[in-house]
Amino acid sequence: MKKQDIIKAILGNRYGKSPVLPSATAFASTNIALCKYWGKRDAELNLPITPSLSISLEQKGTTTEIQVNGLNRITVNGQPIENRSSFGKRLFEYVSLFDPNEPLSFHIQSNIPIGAGLASSASGFASLALALNQLYNWRLTLKELSILARIGSGSACRSLWQGFVEWEAGSNPDGMDSFAKPLPQIWPDLCIGVLMHSHAEKKLSSREAMNRSVKTSPFYSSWPSKVAHDLIQIKQAIQSKDLPLLGQIAESNALAMHALVQSSWPPFSYSLPQTLEAMQKIWSLRQEGLEVYFTQDAGPNLKLIFMEQTLTPLLQVFPHMEVIRPFVGK
Amino acid sequence: MKKQDIIKAILGNRYGKSPVLPSATAFASTNIALCKYWGKRDAELNLPITPSLSISLEQKGTTTEIQVNGLNRITVNGQPIENRSSFGKRLFEYVSLFDPNEPLSFHIQSNIPIGAGLASSASGFASLALALNQLYNWRLTLKELSILARIGSGSACRSLWQGFVEWEAGSNPDGMDSFAKPLPQIWPDLCIGVLMHSHAEKKLSSREAMNRSVKTSPFYSSWPSKVAHDLIQIKQAIQSKDLPLLGQIAESNALAMHALVQSSWPPFSYSLPQTLEAMQKIWSLRQEGLEVYFTQDAGPNLKLIFMEQTLTPLLQVFPHMEVIRPFVGK
Repeated sequence: MKKQDIIKAILGNRYGKSPVLPSATAFASTNIALCKYWGKRDAELNLPITPSLSISLEQKGTTTEIQVNGLNRITVNGQPIENRSSFGKRLFEYVSLFDPNEPLSFHIQSNIPIGAGLASSASGFASLALALNQLYNWRLTLKELSILARIGSGSACRSLWQGFVEWEAGSNPDGMDSFAKPLPQIWPDLCIGVLMHSHAEKKLSSREAMNRSVKTSPFYSSWPSKVAHDLIQIKQAIQSKDLPLLGQIAESNALAMHALVQSSWPPFSYSLPQTLEAMQKIWSLRQEGLEVYFTQDAGPNLKLIFMEQTLTPLLQVFPHMEVIRPFVGK
Repeated sequence: MKKQDIIKAILGNRYGKSPVLPSATAFASTNIALCKYWGKRDAELNLPITPSLSISLEQKGTTTEIQVNGLNRITVNGQPIENRSSFGKRLFEYVSLFDPNEPLSFHIQSNIPIGAGLASSASGFASLALALNQLYNWRLTLKELSILARIGSGSACRSLWQGFVEWEAGSNPDGMDSFAKPLPQIWPDLCIGVLMHSHAEKKLSSREAMNRSVKTSPFYSSWPSKVAHDLIQIKQAIQSKDLPLLGQIAESNALAMHALVQSSWPPFSYSLPQTLEAMQKIWSLRQEGLEVYFTQDAGPNLKLIFMEQTLTPLLQVFPHMEVIRPFVGK
């Protein structure tokens, strides 16, 4: 089993040991990609075709508590979840890679909707890896935990840090060089605004959608060079705190990703009518001189990118926007 | 003047002669591309980067009457149009290429909305070229008229015939090999349904949008090979009356064209919220087993592609759909 080989390699003689604590709890932020992860070179190990770059959303994320209580139970926000549900299966499958014999229970508290394109699985698997590390007292580095989180869900490898985080694609077949690392830059007045258009679970998983893009979009072959270009530009924008550059590249990158989805067969769109309306509103605000950009993940919700000084006029247009300051208190 | 050189080459010693009739009237159908024309290799002569393939919409189109009355007047559907409007300028600029000195008046009757992505300029310039041919008694072939119509508006070169029409891209710098020709196949039970979501003029001309795609979309470089593939498949579908193949390729081609627009900078979408809703409805109808596909041009309106036998259930979902039978009476 390939995944387990990687885990054994990382844990070494710690593999197969029992938990040292009766329970452990960890939090991880969700992250949104400014340069998207879209396409796998290895589906089992979640190894990406390209690198990607994200920003973590501070207090928005997932807290996972693991209990060693001889039961196999899951609750999400206090509600019990069927072990046989796709969510339950995915979770137990993951933890059984580390310790097939120990019955564990999981209490997951998330302040972001599940499966609605807000990277709930990113913060979910990152917090799970952090909690497992405590429970078993593995004392792994964040780099090692990034690899373990990635095995659960690709973008989870970026959720172990705050601020800007880059996931290096790597090239090794075992993926030991495919992990995330934080960028040092801090940008205190940068804001992210979340426009929730739906809390509903998406109809097409990002896993399936990206596979479809790789296999059927006539444009996928140009995606890696787009990403290479965008990454250089985004890092330059972060370095010089150039919001128009950051915004333009992030928005263009997201639209290109959705162009891949739309040009795949069967075609699909993650947008709702309200998503399109909000995009067109943002484009016209920009024409009026307001510096605001958006990104969109595998769901109908938009995340706006802007500076603190733009907040007041923006809230007049989008009064229900939730504002996140990723660098607050830093 | 490059355009005029082409016109002189086609008209020969007929160039510069006066009208032989006091007035002339001609009709041309509009056409919708099943494989889109998107990108010019020569902006002045409207020479395309790729070939394209369309279907003409029978009675939907434009009638142009030209009067030799010493005036320079335009009416569209009975309403006078300013000569200095962009429409007026474009029209007079075009006719002055043929005869700079003769004041002519134009009465244009169109049963399709102008500038709303229903190829009003295709039927407009095709009917204009046909009417000029009568007025001056040039006795040009349809191939020659196709070249002249193309100089007015690229896709107009396809509007001189009914049924399926292919526009060969050509490779000569003068474009004398870039004209349309009809395909012989007839498909009596093929229907086109028009879902009008807006009669408003589009905010971004297709001319500007395709230039932006060529210059800024990271995916444009893959468009010509997509077209080459799609053309082969569409011709095969027409040959064997294979609606799922025709529909799939036409829909995929349109979505890819819109993916180019969306991935350009500045980004744009020709869709309205209703457009997206209709697309998603069509995708779910297809999942329920109804054989219906769509295409979309540079505007928010969708054109559905289906067989006569599917009409009744479709009208239940889209009661306002206008139905066109391109091969009726053939």
